[in-house]
Amino acid sequence: MPEYAVGLDLGGTNLKAGLVHREEGLVETARRPTEADKGPEHVLDQMAAVASDLMAPIGEENVLGIGIGSPGAINWERTTVSHPPNLPGWTSINLQETLRDRLGSLVVVVENDANAAGLGSAHYGAGAAFDSFLMVTLGTGVGGAIIYRNQIFRGSTGGAGEIGHMTIDYEGPYANTGVAGAIEGYLGQSFLSDHARDRLVNYPDSAVHGLVEGDLDRVTPRVLSEAAEQGDDAARSILAWAGHKLGCVLGAAVNLLDIRTIIVGGGVSGAGDFLLAPARDTLPRYVTPGLRDDLTLRREKRGNDVGMLGAARLVFEGADAHV
Amino acid sequence: MPEYAVGLDLGGTNLKAGLVHREEGLVETARRPTEADKGPEHVLDQMAAVASDLMAPIGEENVLGIGIGSPGAINWERTTVSHPPNLPGWTSINLQETLRDRLGSLVVVVENDANAAGLGSAHYGAGAAFDSFLMVTLGTGVGGAIIYRNQIFRGSTGGAGEIGHMTIDYEGPYANTGVAGAIEGYLGQSFLSDHARDRLVNYPDSAVHGLVEGDLDRVTPRVLSEAAEQGDDAARSILAWAGHKLGCVLGAAVNLLDIRTIIVGGGVSGAGDFLLAPARDTLPRYVTPGLRDDLTLRREKRGNDVGMLGAARLVFEGADAHV
Repeated sequence: MPEYAVGLDLGGTNLKAGLVHREEGLVETARRPTEADKGPEHVLDQMAAVASDLMAPIGEENVLGIGIGSPGAINWERTTVSHPPNLPGWTSINLQETLRDRLGSLVVVVENDANAAGLGSAHYGAGAAFDSFLMVTLGTGVGGAIIYRNQIFRGSTGGAGEIGHMTIDYEGPYANTGVAGAIEGYLGQSFLSDHARDRLVNYPDSAVHGLVEGDLDRVTPRVLSEAAEQGDDAARSILAWAGHKLGCVLGAAVNLLDIRTIIVGGGVSGAGDFLLAPARDTLPRYVTPGLRDDLTLRREKRGNDVGMLGAARLVFEGADAHV
Repeated sequence: MPEYAVGLDLGGTNLKAGLVHREEGLVETARRPTEADKGPEHVLDQMAAVASDLMAPIGEENVLGIGIGSPGAINWERTTVSHPPNLPGWTSINLQETLRDRLGSLVVVVENDANAAGLGSAHYGAGAAFDSFLMVTLGTGVGGAIIYRNQIFRGSTGGAGEIGHMTIDYEGPYANTGVAGAIEGYLGQSFLSDHARDRLVNYPDSAVHGLVEGDLDRVTPRVLSEAAEQGDDAARSILAWAGHKLGCVLGAAVNLLDIRTIIVGGGVSGAGDFLLAPARDTLPRYVTPGLRDDLTLRREKRGNDVGMLGAARLVFEGADAHV
């Protein structure tokens, strides 16, 4: 059986793809702009092209198939994505059919991007040390995946793990989806940046002002991390505020799941311990005493690569299930 | 194979046991006082006695075993209960060994009482119509169980489903376990009664005052339900307040699990639609739009019997797994 698969991370801005060896992990990567504004057909062409780029040197016959981590809702059969945010014009597209039209009879599997990241972490990342964990991805939004006994817990329709929409304050501010107090309304990139701007007005000496050259519209979580690294109190305080909120929602999740390991990935997790240490402090205070032992919160050190790795892993698992 | 099992619901006040036929369900019940103040050995004697009472008429050889729904933490092997609240002097007791000492070599299985209720509902109650659902039991506390594909989702150590300790307000009031804004701090029997007392001071014409003969210390959720049935606005408003909170926490759970059916059992669920209709209204507002279809919230019409039924079901499932 071929020992390689392509894992493709379908983002609103870039397509990132990796050639993954079953045992050795990521051996080669490629990237193309998504150019989502040119419409679904163009994006599908780009996806096929980046996969072809990776397969050409080793020969398509040595590749088991293509796994895709995609935003949006995925059907139970893992063939079709519906209403991915940031991909205009996509209603419901069967990626299996449309990519086979372009690439031939390869295996094509699609999974929600957060679930793919969880599966990647479970097999190639920080999650490999644990049977079960909750993966939280802090990026533009707040995504999540439940890995239970080394498998994605998919729920009734494949949509489980939407930790970003869990409320921690039923009278709190509204997030994108209209859920009051949803954690994404605190930790989503734009919400966290807005909060930082509001606070920074009261910290005229903060290093952040210099980093954004006085233009607070340019504040991002990355800038806050950079200032925090430099010892800036305002940035550290803002990231601690966010980490506390993260601890609250993770506590709620631990109570429901009795899964006590949490792995945090995604771009905002680059804030590292400025965000994660306060989350670790808060977490047990929101968990019932009987479930407080062995709580573990770690950063995914492989970063966003776990998305590609997990997407490829879907292909291996599908093949294993059919042997 | 014997077609009967005994299901035993180990409460702080009463032991309720049922003789359960695999297909026909509950055929006979018995009850003894727990007399928890007389210590664990006495309670174990009572448990053995109530089981013997039920088995005697049909003959022990026709009974597959005894399943027990117990408060407290249950070990992964389902033999031992640790630190059950309301049972003084119980630290960690192996019910399998201690009951076999009293009853001979019967199968003995123990599971958390909320999980047992969920399993009972899944096979003999409102849950039988669904593959997956979240069971919430509203009683002295707020318990929960996740039934996923007709099985109890146990989490890493058997402790999953603790919905009562999920926060809906990270700066909210503290519940028993010290979690701020935990739903049990609103809907647990004593908390809901306290809230009602505070509110009723402002409703001097409420029917509740008559029902408790002017002694607000006697207000319970049951009294509120009774007044609500009589058309009392104050009682209806208090139950609606509680139902709204229930909807918030259930929304958070749906986001995480993508399990869209909720079955509410336990004594407080007797408040029926005065509590559940507001919960139903609130629920979708705390769920991300992609998971809002097909949300269903039902009352468990078999009441607390699902606890005994589920406890017995554990015995049948254990036997099936060994065939």
